[in-house]
Amino acid sequence: MSAHPRLSLNQATIKHASLEEALHEATGAGYESIGLWREPVADVGLERAARLVAASGLRVSSLCRGGFFTAEPGQAQQEALDDNRRAIEETAALAAAGADGSRPVLVLVAGGMPGASKDLAGARERVTEVVGNLAPYAQEAGVTLAVEPLHPIFAADRAVVSTLGQAIDIAEAAGPSVGVVVDTYHVWWDPEVLAQIARAGASGRIASYQVCDWLTPVPADNLLGRGLMGDGTIDFTPLTRAVVAAGYTGDIEVEIFNQQLWDASFAEVVAQVSARFAELIAPDLPAARPAEVRGR
Amino acid sequence: MSAHPRLSLNQATIKHASLEEALHEATGAGYESIGLWREPVADVGLERAARLVAASGLRVSSLCRGGFFTAEPGQAQQEALDDNRRAIEETAALAAAGADGSRPVLVLVAGGMPGASKDLAGARERVTEVVGNLAPYAQEAGVTLAVEPLHPIFAADRAVVSTLGQAIDIAEAAGPSVGVVVDTYHVWWDPEVLAQIARAGASGRIASYQVCDWLTPVPADNLLGRGLMGDGTIDFTPLTRAVVAAGYTGDIEVEIFNQQLWDASFAEVVAQVSARFAELIAPDLPAARPAEVRGR
Repeated sequence: MSAHPRLSLNQATIKHASLEEALHEATGAGYESIGLWREPVADVGLERAARLVAASGLRVSSLCRGGFFTAEPGQAQQEALDDNRRAIEETAALAAAGADGSRPVLVLVAGGMPGASKDLAGARERVTEVVGNLAPYAQEAGVTLAVEPLHPIFAADRAVVSTLGQAIDIAEAAGPSVGVVVDTYHVWWDPEVLAQIARAGASGRIASYQVCDWLTPVPADNLLGRGLMGDGTIDFTPLTRAVVAAGYTGDIEVEIFNQQLWDASFAEVVAQVSARFAELIAPDLPAARPAEVRGR
Repeated sequence: MSAHPRLSLNQATIKHASLEEALHEATGAGYESIGLWREPVADVGLERAARLVAASGLRVSSLCRGGFFTAEPGQAQQEALDDNRRAIEETAALAAAGADGSRPVLVLVAGGMPGASKDLAGARERVTEVVGNLAPYAQEAGVTLAVEPLHPIFAADRAVVSTLGQAIDIAEAAGPSVGVVVDTYHVWWDPEVLAQIARAGASGRIASYQVCDWLTPVPADNLLGRGLMGDGTIDFTPLTRAVVAAGYTGDIEVEIFNQQLWDASFAEVVAQVSARFAELIAPDLPAARPAEVRGR
């Protein structure tokens, strides 16, 4: 089996797979790239994880995830900084173990408003500050921090970074080692999205492009409102074309939190993801020989 | 009992009240203003509704709602236009029946993406076109059309107008009879909200200010995630101050869709709304003698 050379399986799409199983499923279905999560990596330990990745021959498109930067200054903020430094080291190690073309990218989720705080503006300022503090450390490690704006439905409890424009502002303030994630699920509704993708591209800030669909109605657990491309309301063509026009040539992750997919067999999900990618994303990508993709 | 002179009870907050009951509850609790909905008005007929409003001595702060403009050109679009023309007439008649200071304001909800369409950009263009078509009719009737941006959670199925900036763009394209609604629940998350409130004020486009809170977690029926001010995550002070600084001097509606409130007694809800308004909104409003408010 083969899959599109730029398609990357984000591990969360088959959440219940171990790292070894996820690598096995991805290679079995012809994927060339995988997006890893810290928890299944920690389950086997970083060294063994790196060996497994190296043996798989897959590229590592990103590590999910660092962040959660909204705590008030004090112990919780210090713990977040320490944890993110470890995540940066893990990202560097896993990307080094990945096949040629792996980019060391650590995805950052900002975090929600802490405790009973109603100070959204203050939480946002702290995110900018903490990302700025981490940036030199990431640069030294050769890791790109990828600030991910989350859909405004999550502004209170998960991520106070709500738009791509806001994420680019944070990245630009922090320096060259900080970029942004463009995740269709989180940004598709934004009237400014195409302009902001172009802006992110102009300063080389697109660190990751992730695709999945927005399901309507939103399920009771609103974290699980993502669907396979084609199952929801998103027209991927303008978004993918904008990302291509903005100069992004990296892997494209499919990251779907969805109970039905989590309940299905890994092989079935991985095959479906590849088929939908071929149908709905690949036609808007420039034709590329695999060798060109690997060598980028 | 008295309530703040600028507080208006949006009828949806006591959804199960008839028009007569809603007017009775509002006057009984010392409110000076009410925001009406078309359905309870239609239940008694427009003429009788106008007589009831006139007898109540209340101002009418707005009529909810017109809109639903995203149908493709054809019969459905024509029906939407016809229905909105009727809503404009109803708005003019009800505001004329209201006490001095009533502003004829028709709240417009854009509508979601029609059928199985994935063409969000196209739906947005049609909203701009149809609002532009209605604007001269509204102007002749002396009615302000108030385009309401809805939280992006509703972009697919309810309102393709997702940000205040986008709503202002539509209003500016349509002409002087079109303004915008600033509803805290829908806009609080927007990193641009304070700048956009100032922008709306600079061109005199704030037609309505509505306050209610964002509840976390979002309930299974995401339409019902609104709460009494103070029960959620919104800091009202910066928003209210921005609206005041932008020159808005009109009534301030409390519009809450919330099952618990709908299950409570009307009198209890109306009293709670007034108390929370006094605590969380009034301190950021300029002191005004009732006579000044009425004469504005």
